[in-house]
Amino acid sequence: MSPVIRPKPSIERMKEYVAGRNIEEVARSYGIDERDVIKLASNENCLGPSPLAVSAIKKAASSIHLYPSVDGVELREALAAHYDVPVGNIVTGPGMDGVMETLLRVFLDKGDEIVIPLPTFSYYENVAGFSSAVPVFSTRRPDYGLDIEDILSKVSERTKFIFITSPNNPTGNVTPVEDIERIASAVDCLVFVDEAYIDFADRTALGLVRKYDNVIVGRTMSKAWGLAGLRIGFAFVPEWVLGQYMKAATPHSISRVSIAAAIGALGDKEYYEKSVETVRKGRKYLAGNIPFRTLPSEANFILMDVSPLKSKYVADECMKRGIILRDCTSFRGMGDTFVRVTVGTPAQNKRLVEALKDIRGGA
Amino acid sequence: MSPVIRPKPSIERMKEYVAGRNIEEVARSYGIDERDVIKLASNENCLGPSPLAVSAIKKAASSIHLYPSVDGVELREALAAHYDVPVGNIVTGPGMDGVMETLLRVFLDKGDEIVIPLPTFSYYENVAGFSSAVPVFSTRRPDYGLDIEDILSKVSERTKFIFITSPNNPTGNVTPVEDIERIASAVDCLVFVDEAYIDFADRTALGLVRKYDNVIVGRTMSKAWGLAGLRIGFAFVPEWVLGQYMKAATPHSISRVSIAAAIGALGDKEYYEKSVETVRKGRKYLAGNIPFRTLPSEANFILMDVSPLKSKYVADECMKRGIILRDCTSFRGMGDTFVRVTVGTPAQNKRLVEALKDIRGGA
Repeated sequence: MSPVIRPKPSIERMKEYVAGRNIEEVARSYGIDERDVIKLASNENCLGPSPLAVSAIKKAASSIHLYPSVDGVELREALAAHYDVPVGNIVTGPGMDGVMETLLRVFLDKGDEIVIPLPTFSYYENVAGFSSAVPVFSTRRPDYGLDIEDILSKVSERTKFIFITSPNNPTGNVTPVEDIERIASAVDCLVFVDEAYIDFADRTALGLVRKYDNVIVGRTMSKAWGLAGLRIGFAFVPEWVLGQYMKAATPHSISRVSIAAAIGALGDKEYYEKSVETVRKGRKYLAGNIPFRTLPSEANFILMDVSPLKSKYVADECMKRGIILRDCTSFRGMGDTFVRVTVGTPAQNKRLVEALKDIRGGA
Repeated sequence: MSPVIRPKPSIERMKEYVAGRNIEEVARSYGIDERDVIKLASNENCLGPSPLAVSAIKKAASSIHLYPSVDGVELREALAAHYDVPVGNIVTGPGMDGVMETLLRVFLDKGDEIVIPLPTFSYYENVAGFSSAVPVFSTRRPDYGLDIEDILSKVSERTKFIFITSPNNPTGNVTPVEDIERIASAVDCLVFVDEAYIDFADRTALGLVRKYDNVIVGRTMSKAWGLAGLRIGFAFVPEWVLGQYMKAATPHSISRVSIAAAIGALGDKEYYEKSVETVRKGRKYLAGNIPFRTLPSEANFILMDVSPLKSKYVADECMKRGIILRDCTSFRGMGDTFVRVTVGTPAQNKRLVEALKDIRGGA
């Protein structure tokens, strides 16, 4: 550590992010050909990129020496047309993480609170720490539905946000819109509904953004749109939030190439529909064939409970067989027997099922 | 405003960012063909993109469905090789703005202070506001050099950063390394040297990063490397800063395409040298031919004092003639007679000089 100043306490306490292993590393470690390693760990799109996104990128390459628009307005307009929502209700940012960071820094000051129902995506508490705000946890019910009474009991005068992930990561279940509405109508703080995986589900909370002035719905183009590598997030916000968001947003935060690719992808209906269809079919196959208990999922992943085995053991054994999965031990409150698997192509899903059967038989 | 919660005071006080006008808008407003409008307002690279960056982008387009690395490690390694600096002293982020946001949120808590010598780039104070920290201003000397005694007198126990922009934006002058060293050795806080424009100058403070554990040197690939559209910033940091930076950095924050293009551009020595050479020659031409007082510049722009005319008048008159410049009235402490012009191609520079002569003659 330095002899000079120290990080603020909320950062000093934070653990360094440990990334999962990538294809190159796994291939090297186990002497497997890179082409034989499959990654079902990060919920990426197994179809590869949208052809329309790729051609938009090639076209945009000639203007990379020029700054992108300050606020991604071309993308906001394309999203407005696609979702039939006024452009004044749409904000964009570099990934859903970027959108959340901007939103939280508008409202969160030192000592403020955010309520997080566990288990869930862990980045919310990091972002709270950036403002020296405090995460307050609620525990989901045994079926991973929200415990609404508990959430409401955790809301104080310092609460600025409640985070509801739907479909939830890593459990895969959707929160009924009525539950979100019950919460939104009972509180004065903002309710952020993280719908990163909503494209694979049947129900969205989008309608609540018009009905309540404290509901924000976050989205990403990293999943069904296949653009994880380009960092494109957006959110549907009440109109009064827009101007405040713009003040706290990093200018020009989405690259020119990403904006072009996103607009290209939005026009690729065929790709989007194939993505969703592939996930729905693959999810059904995996749920029916994985030799462990799986949870009902409306996302592009499935959570399996590998007990009596341990998640680390199963993930390691899969890795030896060239399949990278996500051991969920690091999710707060998730225990040590859950593994999350991304829905892949039919061939990848089949290989996964065979590997799991082999591991289960050999343990 | 909402009937629910309010933004925190530092954001509520902030003004909304007003972007300069772009080529399309100016063409439309004044009935000029878009191809005849030139933008010398944002210090972009007049050569267009590096061919090696463009081909790297086209190659990377096939993997946009996969997340980029968590910390841009491939780019950090390429920068380490290029600058012959250990990779443990390099951090990357989405633009220099993104790098600064991450650094400041590591250290700045509500009520902390940063010292900013004026006039200069205005985003520093916005970023301070994101953490409810307070900007404390020092005034540069009449030649825009630092007033070291004044800066040191503004440093308190709450000061976490001193910002030194070199070459300074919008004045163009470099701060002597000895001045930075005098400050760094006298304080316990961090000294952030913003070297966005250093590629066009003769002297860098990079050597101080090894010598002092409180000096950080920020860089961007938006200028000499011609990648403004892709958001790529980096900084040379003392080794103890790296781990803290990683904790506060947004994961996967630089897009796959941007990382690939940046590595491609770093290999394009010819492009880089031509960029610098074009700016050096154009700067000399502009300084010798602009019919107003110009300030000595080591950047890819020149500041001119158009008094007794007003900056807004001159910028508006140029815009009518299809040339977009930067009226500097919005720079705190800059007054209302300064206009910043980006060094362009020889043809663009010539057209600018003729327009300015015309405006000066007609006023």
